[in-house]
Amino acid sequence: MTERRHEREFVRTFFTSPTAIEGEEDSAKMIRRAAQLRGMQAPDVWVPDNEDATAPSMRDEGVENIIEVVSEHGAEFPGEIHPRMVWHRDSPATRYQGFQHMLEIASSDTGAIEHIDGFVIPEVGDIDDWKKADEFFTIIENECGLEEGSLAMSVIIESGESELAMGKLRDEMGKATNNLERLFLFVDGEVDYTKDMRAMTPTGELPSWPELRHNTSRGASANGCIAIDGPYDDIRDVEGYHERMTENQAKGMLGIWSLTPGQVVEANQSPLPPKTGSWLLDVDGEQVELDSEDGVEVYDGDRVSLEETDGGYELRVGNDTRTLDEDELHEELLKLTSYVPSMDDIVDSMEEFEAAKEAGRGAIAMERSATLRIGGTEFDISTDRMWDEATYQAAMTPISLFQDVYENRPDQHDELNERYGAGVVERAMEVGL
Amino acid sequence: MTERRHEREFVRTFFTSPTAIEGEEDSAKMIRRAAQLRGMQAPDVWVPDNEDATAPSMRDEGVENIIEVVSEHGAEFPGEIHPRMVWHRDSPATRYQGFQHMLEIASSDTGAIEHIDGFVIPEVGDIDDWKKADEFFTIIENECGLEEGSLAMSVIIESGESELAMGKLRDEMGKATNNLERLFLFVDGEVDYTKDMRAMTPTGELPSWPELRHNTSRGASANGCIAIDGPYDDIRDVEGYHERMTENQAKGMLGIWSLTPGQVVEANQSPLPPKTGSWLLDVDGEQVELDSEDGVEVYDGDRVSLEETDGGYELRVGNDTRTLDEDELHEELLKLTSYVPSMDDIVDSMEEFEAAKEAGRGAIAMERSATLRIGGTEFDISTDRMWDEATYQAAMTPISLFQDVYENRPDQHDELNERYGAGVVERAMEVGL
Amino acid sequence: MTERRHEREFVRTFFTSPTAIEGEEDSAKMIRRAAQLRGMQAPDVWVPDNEDATAPSMRDEGVENIIEVVSEHGAEFPGEIHPRMVWHRDSPATRYQGFQHMLEIASSDTGAIEHIDGFVIPEVGDIDDWKKADEFFTIIENECGLEEGSLAMSVIIESGESELAMGKLRDEMGKATNNLERLFLFVDGEVDYTKDMRAMTPTGELPSWPELRHNTSRGASANGCIAIDGPYDDIRDVEGYHERMTENQAKGMLGIWSLTPGQVVEANQSPLPPKTGSWLLDVDGEQVELDSEDGVEVYDGDRVSLEETDGGYELRVGNDTRTLDEDELHEELLKLTSYVPSMDDIVDSMEEFEAAKEAGRGAIAMERSATLRIGGTEFDISTDRMWDEATYQAAMTPISLFQDVYENRPDQHDELNERYGAGVVERAMEVGL
Repeated sequence: MTERRHEREFVRTFFTSPTAIEGEEDSAKMIRRAAQLRGMQAPDVWVPDNEDATAPSMRDEGVENIIEVVSEHGAEFPGEIHPRMVWHRDSPATRYQGFQHMLEIASSDTGAIEHIDGFVIPEVGDIDDWKKADEFFTIIENECGLEEGSLAMSVIIESGESELAMGKLRDEMGKATNNLERLFLFVDGEVDYTKDMRAMTPTGELPSWPELRHNTSRGASANGCIAIDGPYDDIRDVEGYHERMTENQAKGMLGIWSLTPGQVVEANQSPLPPKTGSWLLDVDGEQVELDSEDGVEVYDGDRVSLEETDGGYELRVGNDTRTLDEDELHEELLKLTSYVPSMDDIVDSMEEFEAAKEAGRGAIAMERSATLRIGGTEFDISTDRMWDEATYQAAMTPISLFQDVYENRPDQHDELNERYGAGVVERAMEVGL
Repeated sequence: MTERRHEREFVRTFFTSPTAIEGEEDSAKMIRRAAQLRGMQAPDVWVPDNEDATAPSMRDEGVENIIEVVSEHGAEFPGEIHPRMVWHRDSPATRYQGFQHMLEIASSDTGAIEHIDGFVIPEVGDIDDWKKADEFFTIIENECGLEEGSLAMSVIIESGESELAMGKLRDEMGKATNNLERLFLFVDGEVDYTKDMRAMTPTGELPSWPELRHNTSRGASANGCIAIDGPYDDIRDVEGYHERMTENQAKGMLGIWSLTPGQVVEANQSPLPPKTGSWLLDVDGEQVELDSEDGVEVYDGDRVSLEETDGGYELRVGNDTRTLDEDELHEELLKLTSYVPSMDDIVDSMEEFEAAKEAGRGAIAMERSATLRIGGTEFDISTDRMWDEATYQAAMTPISLFQDVYENRPDQHDELNERYGAGVVERAMEVGL
Repeated sequence: MTERRHEREFVRTFFTSPTAIEGEEDSAKMIRRAAQLRGMQAPDVWVPDNEDATAPSMRDEGVENIIEVVSEHGAEFPGEIHPRMVWHRDSPATRYQGFQHMLEIASSDTGAIEHIDGFVIPEVGDIDDWKKADEFFTIIENECGLEEGSLAMSVIIESGESELAMGKLRDEMGKATNNLERLFLFVDGEVDYTKDMRAMTPTGELPSWPELRHNTSRGASANGCIAIDGPYDDIRDVEGYHERMTENQAKGMLGIWSLTPGQVVEANQSPLPPKTGSWLLDVDGEQVELDSEDGVEVYDGDRVSLEETDGGYELRVGNDTRTLDEDELHEELLKLTSYVPSMDDIVDSMEEFEAAKEAGRGAIAMERSATLRIGGTEFDISTDRMWDEATYQAAMTPISLFQDVYENRPDQHDELNERYGAGVVERAMEVGL
């Protein structure tokens, strides 16, 4: 396989901050602040943004600000730093400006480039356009005495052309005349994508673009890169941001753009397993979390009820009431419930499977049981799930992500230890190795 | 970029009419009628259909009818004319017949070709099959003294092969041995696609093919073409036709096939902004339009209620009642409501942003406020939305479409002026230039 | 078109059975049993599985078991036999082991290979990886005196790379240096795909991957292959298995993986038309099947009611009551109802259309009518649907599948005749020819 250069295998947060604010006395104020974020507030990848978040007339000043702030604070910044430059598939002037800005940053005698991991290139087009940017990176590396391929290149997918380009990368990467192995993040940019696709909605809300997100995730997977979803504009809608992240995670897109340190915190935590497990009850298609009271999982709403009758049970869901015997009720409740495992649960299961494997068994049954209380009536459910090597491997994803975070982000150790307890953290760092 | 030839940048309506009806005394009756449509009843692209809408035995007569009717009425027809020929990726006989028919039309001494903008080629396969059709266009242009590339070629995407071909076009267009820049419309043909994919549903209803529509829209966007959705069979179901169009517009597919002049009217109006704005309330996932009464937006159903209580409010949505203070209620109602802007509103916002840009500001807050009345209780809401260059560009799509329509369809001026008022139309033609 | 080798044009069931169970006295027990399945319990394609269902340490023994059981029972097995070998795009050792195992099976002097139709290759990568496997097939065919291309190759799509590869196949198949025409089944493997995409869900449930299934179905359609969905883990959830199959069928994916003979039965029957037709009523988005009582279609739930009033009707759906006149009610009920045709109905319609075609008519109206009884009130509905050649062709898919089954699976004749009656079966075998 083609060798990739990146230390991080997972990136949760892609945080852009304005490089320069027009009219501000200190036009570097925003990135100066961003450079000093730590812990859960600090992103995995920080992007001082000299494109959309900087007014066109301020972009030369923006470059100077990046040089100044990164050379001053870069050594201590806990995540990676990837400034966003200007670029456009349809404008040679913009592309050349992007090249000049990168060269200026890389050749600055402040040593800023030592703290910079790569650059983000927006508005890329088809694969030949990606190669143009790659060639500029190579020239800059050569001019500035950096190893060829050492600067990562991330791209914003915000046109149909670049969406299609991800399907062609494997035919191009590894060729002698390019260094496309430097590719790192594929970031969806839904606002410009919507414009490029000429899409529109009655209220002006962005379309959700499920196919784009699938294609970006697949492109990243097939090319050893990492997929990141675009910005979520309504920064007050924390619930909506979480729903979007959960949807994305089911597509293999574990990272998301953040517009504020508050969104960074949410996005850093979202892909990590919860501290405590929880049972869900499917109430007419909605997943309701049950309250855990002294080891009993309690539903106390009025949309589901359960009553014991002579020799059986009456289960009502919404307007639909059924009389069931004990076995039928058990079967039905298994269908209606599901369990969200905690970090501790996942580590337990993995350890159990690893021990079984060591003892020469390829598949084992994992039991999951609970006492439910619905409308005052208690009932025990229990089920086995078969784990084989594939189940084990798929369960590994959140743990691998945790391990990657723990290794690369010492500034988050306190918060992680506080969240999970040091014992669970230690065991989580051991499984799967 | 490759230069494309098309005058229209947007196409709302793709209207096929039968070229010849077997057994009719006047087999050209239907296209004679279609050729005389005007205003909102006339499509942007009219397709006298010598393929599926003409019986196989009538296709030579169909060609004669096209020549006769187009030479007689073509000069006055307000939209473009693109007859559909026969073609099949698996049949050389059908392909050759398609070529002969096109040649006959193009070389007719009636001058019909002067009013014809291109041809529609159904049942295309992979990219090499598209090139075969393109080569026939080139030969015809050469034989008939037309400029090379002057005849537009539209294709019906109704096989997996042609769906994949759209992903390869950028590698082929612009090569010296073809004239694929003539490509114009990518039209989904869901009935034959369903057959080609061997898909089936219990009731025989067509699958909705969201991925196909995404891929067609993306293919059009990446290649400077225009995406059109397939026919909507149930011509009495106006509501369903509108829902389909709204879905398509969120995918960047602004045009749709029409089977009747009635559908043409609906499809011509659908992508245009509404005359008056309206507030929507999210009622358990359904968007309910509020009645505007003397500047108050009124919900008078029984699924949501709002009551003022001592020091707060009770908001009930369905069976779910919550007690909220004023700020919480404001926050909640902002989440539950949305606004569909009118043409006038959009033009206002664009003008405001353009003025701000001229004054040197790159981003401004647009306020949106309303007084709601729910179950008799009134409450004021107000929110700001940030507009930057990207928001502005994305908001431009419906206006660009309007401008394209207004420039190319003088026969619709009266209806457009009546709909919006001459003042709004005039301002809409000025913004964004 | 490229010539493909496969006898079966449709495959409903892809049944993997463990090749060897570690610790079992008779490690061939499971495949010995599978080899003796007949009728609806026997799959169209049976896959003795020497990959995931066999422990790594048992794979050499697994190969011996396959040879033994297939040479003993293969001649009588009613479906095709395609053992699954080991393979991995990232491991030359695994690929070489897969080659050695196939060679061992093919060159065994037991003659097992005479009953083997091909092999299944899991974990393939991009198209060059598919070619490596194809080359091994060619070498084996040459070594063992088999005709070049005679062994079918099926692949498991369980990585982003192989998903993308399906889009490139048409550019590669037919080249002189490969025999990719041997490709047969494209089988989605969602567990490993989820791992490869690094996707995760809160409960550990598999994502539904609609785009992958679309792309696999399209890839199969564009390359003359057959698309098969992956395993449905919860083998007790028969309803869920059926829903998945119905969803898949609307995507053109008519076959599915089965893990047990019970799932084989369900999957063999699912794509076949029902024995009796049924009317559905749309109740707030849910399709409720009406009871047929003496020719009247009865809804006796309480979510919809219908009452005759002075000069009209009151129709209530949920909380929404409307007063309608007779025509409006007819229109409304047409919208709310749909009909699932039986095999007999489909054959009737096709015969009717074929007769019309013979009589020189290209399109005819098919009438569908029923008497509904809702809340005690009866009402007659009737509608026409236009059938043209395209409608006819699309309606052909379930019949073509039936014909393929009937020709290739004599062991299912009894069950099919019992299900439909010999008369309907005979007519179904005649239409469309």
